[in-house]
Amino acid sequence: MDNLLKCEANYTALTPLMFLSRAAACFANRASVIHEGTRFTWAQTYERCRRLASSLRALNISRTDVVSVLAPNIPAMYEMHFAVPMAGAVLNTINTRLDAKNIATILRHSEAKIFFVDYEFVSKARDALRMLMDDNNINRQQKGDSTAKPTNQHNNTFSLPLVIVIDDINSPTGIRLGELEYEQMVHHGNPNYVPEMIQDEWTPIALNYTSGTTSEPKGVVYSHRGAYLSTLSLILGWEMGSEPVYLWTLPMFHCNGWTFTWGVAARGGTSVCLRTTAARDIYRNIVLHNVTHMCCAPIVFNIIIEAKPSERCEIRLKGKPPVEILTGGAPPPASLLEQIESLGFHVTHAYGLTEATGPALVCEWQKKWNMLSQQEQAQLKARQGVSVLTMADVDVKNLDTMESVPKDGKTMGEIVLKGSGIMMGYFKDHEATSKAFGNGWFRTGDVGVIHPDGYLEIKDRSKDVIISGGENISSVEVESVLYRHPWVLEAAVVAMPHPRWGESPCAFVSLKKNNNSSSKNEVTEAEIIGYCRKNLPHFMVPKVVKFMEKLPQTSTGKIQKFELRVMAKAFVVPENVQSNKKSSQVDQNNIGGYNNHDQILAMSRL
Amino acid sequence: MDNLLKCEANYTALTPLMFLSRAAACFANRASVIHEGTRFTWAQTYERCRRLASSLRALNISRTDVVSVLAPNIPAMYEMHFAVPMAGAVLNTINTRLDAKNIATILRHSEAKIFFVDYEFVSKARDALRMLMDDNNINRQQKGDSTAKPTNQHNNTFSLPLVIVIDDINSPTGIRLGELEYEQMVHHGNPNYVPEMIQDEWTPIALNYTSGTTSEPKGVVYSHRGAYLSTLSLILGWEMGSEPVYLWTLPMFHCNGWTFTWGVAARGGTSVCLRTTAARDIYRNIVLHNVTHMCCAPIVFNIIIEAKPSERCEIRLKGKPPVEILTGGAPPPASLLEQIESLGFHVTHAYGLTEATGPALVCEWQKKWNMLSQQEQAQLKARQGVSVLTMADVDVKNLDTMESVPKDGKTMGEIVLKGSGIMMGYFKDHEATSKAFGNGWFRTGDVGVIHPDGYLEIKDRSKDVIISGGENISSVEVESVLYRHPWVLEAAVVAMPHPRWGESPCAFVSLKKNNNSSSKNEVTEAEIIGYCRKNLPHFMVPKVVKFMEKLPQTSTGKIQKFELRVMAKAFVVPENVQSNKKSSQVDQNNIGGYNNHDQILAMSRL
Repeated sequence: MDNLLKCEANYTALTPLMFLSRAAACFANRASVIHEGTRFTWAQTYERCRRLASSLRALNISRTDVVSVLAPNIPAMYEMHFAVPMAGAVLNTINTRLDAKNIATILRHSEAKIFFVDYEFVSKARDALRMLMDDNNINRQQKGDSTAKPTNQHNNTFSLPLVIVIDDINSPTGIRLGELEYEQMVHHGNPNYVPEMIQDEWTPIALNYTSGTTSEPKGVVYSHRGAYLSTLSLILGWEMGSEPVYLWTLPMFHCNGWTFTWGVAARGGTSVCLRTTAARDIYRNIVLHNVTHMCCAPIVFNIIIEAKPSERCEIRLKGKPPVEILTGGAPPPASLLEQIESLGFHVTHAYGLTEATGPALVCEWQKKWNMLSQQEQAQLKARQGVSVLTMADVDVKNLDTMESVPKDGKTMGEIVLKGSGIMMGYFKDHEATSKAFGNGWFRTGDVGVIHPDGYLEIKDRSKDVIISGGENISSVEVESVLYRHPWVLEAAVVAMPHPRWGESPCAFVSLKKNNNSSSKNEVTEAEIIGYCRKNLPHFMVPKVVKFMEKLPQTSTGKIQKFELRVMAKAFVVPENVQSNKKSSQVDQNNIGGYNNHDQILAMSRL
Repeated sequence: MDNLLKCEANYTALTPLMFLSRAAACFANRASVIHEGTRFTWAQTYERCRRLASSLRALNISRTDVVSVLAPNIPAMYEMHFAVPMAGAVLNTINTRLDAKNIATILRHSEAKIFFVDYEFVSKARDALRMLMDDNNINRQQKGDSTAKPTNQHNNTFSLPLVIVIDDINSPTGIRLGELEYEQMVHHGNPNYVPEMIQDEWTPIALNYTSGTTSEPKGVVYSHRGAYLSTLSLILGWEMGSEPVYLWTLPMFHCNGWTFTWGVAARGGTSVCLRTTAARDIYRNIVLHNVTHMCCAPIVFNIIIEAKPSERCEIRLKGKPPVEILTGGAPPPASLLEQIESLGFHVTHAYGLTEATGPALVCEWQKKWNMLSQQEQAQLKARQGVSVLTMADVDVKNLDTMESVPKDGKTMGEIVLKGSGIMMGYFKDHEATSKAFGNGWFRTGDVGVIHPDGYLEIKDRSKDVIISGGENISSVEVESVLYRHPWVLEAAVVAMPHPRWGESPCAFVSLKKNNNSSSKNEVTEAEIIGYCRKNLPHFMVPKVVKFMEKLPQTSTGKIQKFELRVMAKAFVVPENVQSNKKSSQVDQNNIGGYNNHDQILAMSRL
């Protein structure tokens, strides 16, 4: 089998950039991006991206330079997903919910050459840049050389990025931070610019910082190959057909919008941009543009469900299929699923993480499940499912032995992944990269089980598992019971110290607001504990329940368990719970899970 | 961006083999393959493939060894698409319609180590093997060494392949050719065999010989990468959802069933096997197994349409979507499309060739087309469409200048492709490989146009273009008019010599049979020519029409234009046509196309 010819005709680098040129060639006049009064076609989007890419090149942006962006889901944010790599550079989208200090950290770590800032975030960006300047000055003074020109990161100072403001495309405000503005960059660019050829698909395309709750953010690097394959994966896994109308309720700064920035182009669809996830805007855009697909965290379900009547529109129209929602993060509780689906949505649950270029598992629906009760369907839907098609393998393993757990839906282990959709590594952090890739697998840090039918279900983040008397308690499992309580809006369960069991579960909940009936006053700690006793083995029942107005969240909308854990450490286990020892012990013998001492140790070290 | 870690966790070889292990893990108990009384699940198929692969290894099959198969669409044929590469070997499926001589040529050229033969083809295989033995003897005698053991191809003799018969799985016949039998190989294999790791995705997985009508067959080699990407492409392009029930009306020996051998596994679907494409079997299996998808050449449309009432079942059931058909080859004439769709099918048209791992273009349907008349829809459907998602680029070019033709739907050029779905090259034919890959593109040898909306339409094989008085006449265009004639079943138009114009069109037609009305007797040459005059520019009208019982076909069901061209050479242009010179000239000025002398030359050299 020699003499076969590997050449440009039969071995082209896999890159999501080809989705745009293809869309421009095949669907030139179809709507690509809509944002209020602004509407582009694929031919226009391609031209705008080429113009912007040529302007970036004119600013001396070259290969593997980082271009950072701080912007909501606006057309510019969408375009940069193509234009920046078309200039050969690496796109770094920054979470807009971060504070100036975090943003400064990211700009410094990424050594961003250009920093695009939406006009709404100019003040925050200015603060971040000022911090960088101050740091530079301090570093220079420490070296006793206040005139030295910064050259690279090794001398602790670095060139500040060139700032380009993105003004409002629908009604320009004139707000600036420096001289350059996005639309001018597009306008002055070359419409016939020939994009940088991607010679090697193992070339960085994007840099996404994880929102570390306990540590410094880590810079996850995606390759063109990984981005391309992950995009195809998710279209396939979600079965997104052609001409989707995709509503941007998921921030594009989350794993490049779970790859749908590129995916909508691949499908020749239309992106409907949204600056915020206000209920009114969501409903209005769905109806106005016949939205077919959207992704969101479960928190957006609450926004949709709790919308005021004046903010709502009727989504369920005769003959129209439901709006497809892909959700990730915490498994949506059955009650929430039922409510959202009754409004005209259909929910698919996925599991992913930044390091896996977004969703790595999708709960692929099986036709035979249509026969089951709504409750049973919701239970199945809450599972994380099966690997997407470009993930080479997924498993749940005991990391000490690297043995797979049995497919019994009970034995927990760490979820490990492998495949070309996994990140290239953490930027400038070889140690963390090596630690993440062990024995040929990427370790997710998530604890799960495999059901007999091969579907995975996540039980917890490894650090969130509560180990009580040698038993592993999945905080997610307790939370899912709490979520079924009619008055609970948010729930989080963490470990609190226990004199006898080591740890025991402690619950934090917030209650629903828009229901003014008197029964709410009856929701007490004792009532919630009683409710849990009816629905959980006793050893899993929270020993303490604390009510909060709103649970603390990370910048990406995840509940901040780290903070809750700190609070829980101060709690004392009440007397009446101490007296429950016996019943707890009995229950422990009745449930499955880790009983072997070595396994318990392995779990606690996950 | 250094220090990123390329390792097993994040850079896995792309291979369709992972579709099988994934299906076995996620859909273990779902039906994988059905053939009459035989029914396997994905867990069983995976185990059977592992067993067979281990048996192949036990027979000393190793990397890049070729394993040939001569079989219809039976479970064994399906399994070998996984089992053979799981042993590290290369699968060579042989067209069962070839004669013994062609088969011997392929076995010799491919240096097959093992030759699987379905019991129905034992006699043909025996003849082929005998020819090989005779050749070996002749070669040895010519060398004056009748005892030398054959070692490799370089001394013109080669080891005969080990023959393994595949007996009927539903009712074994006991027919053998040698000692080994397929089910025994499976039975004695190791169910826990660990498949060969594919280290490099640029490794051959399959070898498919093109059915050359004018030359020796060429061996097209696919890589694991190409097969994987092409499989995803086609699932995406055709929008094949999960759990398809796929009927094997397309031979698996055609580009590995246009990749659906692997694709059905990727989608966790079910393959319904068919030994023949008899109308009764097609209808019966569709209804029995709730078939959702099938691929076929347009010839199968005729089988379905012309089925006797006793052979038919009702496909159109309330609430059930139509059976999706993907078709290739000649564009289906509008009348045929209308007929087949009225029976409960929905047709998508694709274009591909062996060298592109099956379909490279799919006529992706646009929602706005639903508003058009059925006739207009049929016209759009007959176009070949847009590139599949893993094809990096598609264009129509003047090969001399390598300039793209304008998107005017008129200017013809050669269709060129590039992307990782293109073959690795022709086996042991560096010259043909180099010729096929020029200027970074794969040359298809097909002539087409690009419509203003970016959709491609094929006008002809380059060698089938008729050049009359300097005008290019697309034989396909003339044929499509003939197919619209109510009595025409098959039509083919080729060039015949013309004293003044160089060439002129000559038509061969066969007429429909199942209609016994008297009007058929009125179908004369003059009537057909008159019909064409009404529907075509005069210079495109066939000067001669010949009726045949059945047009000659290649082994893959394509009409043998080569033979027709030989026949046409003997024809004399009738007197009355000579007198039409003037009107032809006038018409030529009215139509678009090549008028520039250089362009004409370029076209004639395509």
